[in-house]
Amino acid sequence: MTELDVRERVLAANESAARTLRERFRAAGTLVVNLISSPGSGKTTLLEATIALLSARLKLGAIDGDIATERDADRLRRLGIPAHQVLTGGACHLDARQVQGAMDRGALDDAEILFIENVGNLICPTSYDLGEDFKIVLLSTAEGDDKPFKYPAIFARAAVCVITKTDLLPYVSFDLGAVARQVATLNPAALLLRVSARTGVGMDEWCALLEDALARKRAEG
Amino acid sequence: MTELDVRERVLAANESAARTLRERFRAAGTLVVNLISSPGSGKTTLLEATIALLSARLKLGAIDGDIATERDADRLRRLGIPAHQVLTGGACHLDARQVQGAMDRGALDDAEILFIENVGNLICPTSYDLGEDFKIVLLSTAEGDDKPFKYPAIFARAAVCVITKTDLLPYVSFDLGAVARQVATLNPAALLLRVSARTGVGMDEWCALLEDALARKRAEG
Repeated sequence: MTELDVRERVLAANESAARTLRERFRAAGTLVVNLISSPGSGKTTLLEATIALLSARLKLGAIDGDIATERDADRLRRLGIPAHQVLTGGACHLDARQVQGAMDRGALDDAEILFIENVGNLICPTSYDLGEDFKIVLLSTAEGDDKPFKYPAIFARAAVCVITKTDLLPYVSFDLGAVARQVATLNPAALLLRVSARTGVGMDEWCALLEDALARKRAEG
Repeated sequence: MTELDVRERVLAANESAARTLRERFRAAGTLVVNLISSPGSGKTTLLEATIALLSARLKLGAIDGDIATERDADRLRRLGIPAHQVLTGGACHLDARQVQGAMDRGALDDAEILFIENVGNLICPTSYDLGEDFKIVLLSTAEGDDKPFKYPAIFARAAVCVITKTDLLPYVSFDLGAVARQVATLNPAALLLRVSARTGVGMDEWCALLEDALARKRAEG
């Protein structure tokens, strides 16, 4: 068995677990989004701001993937939502079985929107279906405007690209138009949002996107 | 053969290639540093500023690892140093055989300092020895001050931790002391530098570190 065979076997097992998860989320009416980005792009900060805006009218939940520390789940639990931390044992991505394990603990069964915050990594999480409705890629303005073409797979697969930390735009070199053009080339159907969780700019549009997706999922039954 | 067996076999083959590379670099008197960070932490920008300061008196060279695009090597070649781009075919790290392949092209043989700019990733590159003298981990102030404990393996192994983009400190939430304490816990011997390639702050100390390391390597023969 070669390295490639092993990888194919691992991905096939993941696909099978993801199908089971997707059916479970459909039956429960839970919208599931899989957030993928570099370390420090602001996934947890975006979720904190989202919880502040949405948790009064929607049941939210989160699964946080990290190599080490319970820090991200702690930050979200502090805001009153159920959040389960998965430590990946060194692996650079979450897999569907880890998400199943988190769901089987029961605390996330009632969530209307489940956020899966993947391990900070623009590469590895791309290939692992977690049963989500769609992937979201985050790119902070501090990371530079050349990233979509340098990490094309995730930008091609994510239904939504969120440019974060737009409050830093006056202090960094970041051409929003260049990013928009790269994203449009890689994935013409992708939505591009610009947010600053710190100032709140763009948060209404982001929350509306989530609520619209939830309404569509419910309408489809 | 299990997934774990395959990984052990891959790492053993890499170790063997790295030993050959290390001997080659020792014989040539080339100081080799392996730069590892998240995407967008400023590896290429740090190297551009380093070339501006050092290339008049030292022969520099670079190997750039990326998933896609020749962009990073192009940026360095524009400053007059030989730079070879390795496209990893989707892999989340460089390996020693790719570095051998780059060296066998000949253009980097004369380098006194060789910079290996790894794929943007805080996880995967950690386990792959590239024959370097030491690893350097970069962390930008925009990424947040919780990263060493969240990605402990690279911070434990890197001899030098460079905090980049210190010009953004007034605009982000980043506690330098907290980072220093985490790095000291994970690797008491690590050196911690603070630089802004944009303003030049800290660049003299960074260049002195490289020149001192080169002098020590030459003295050891």
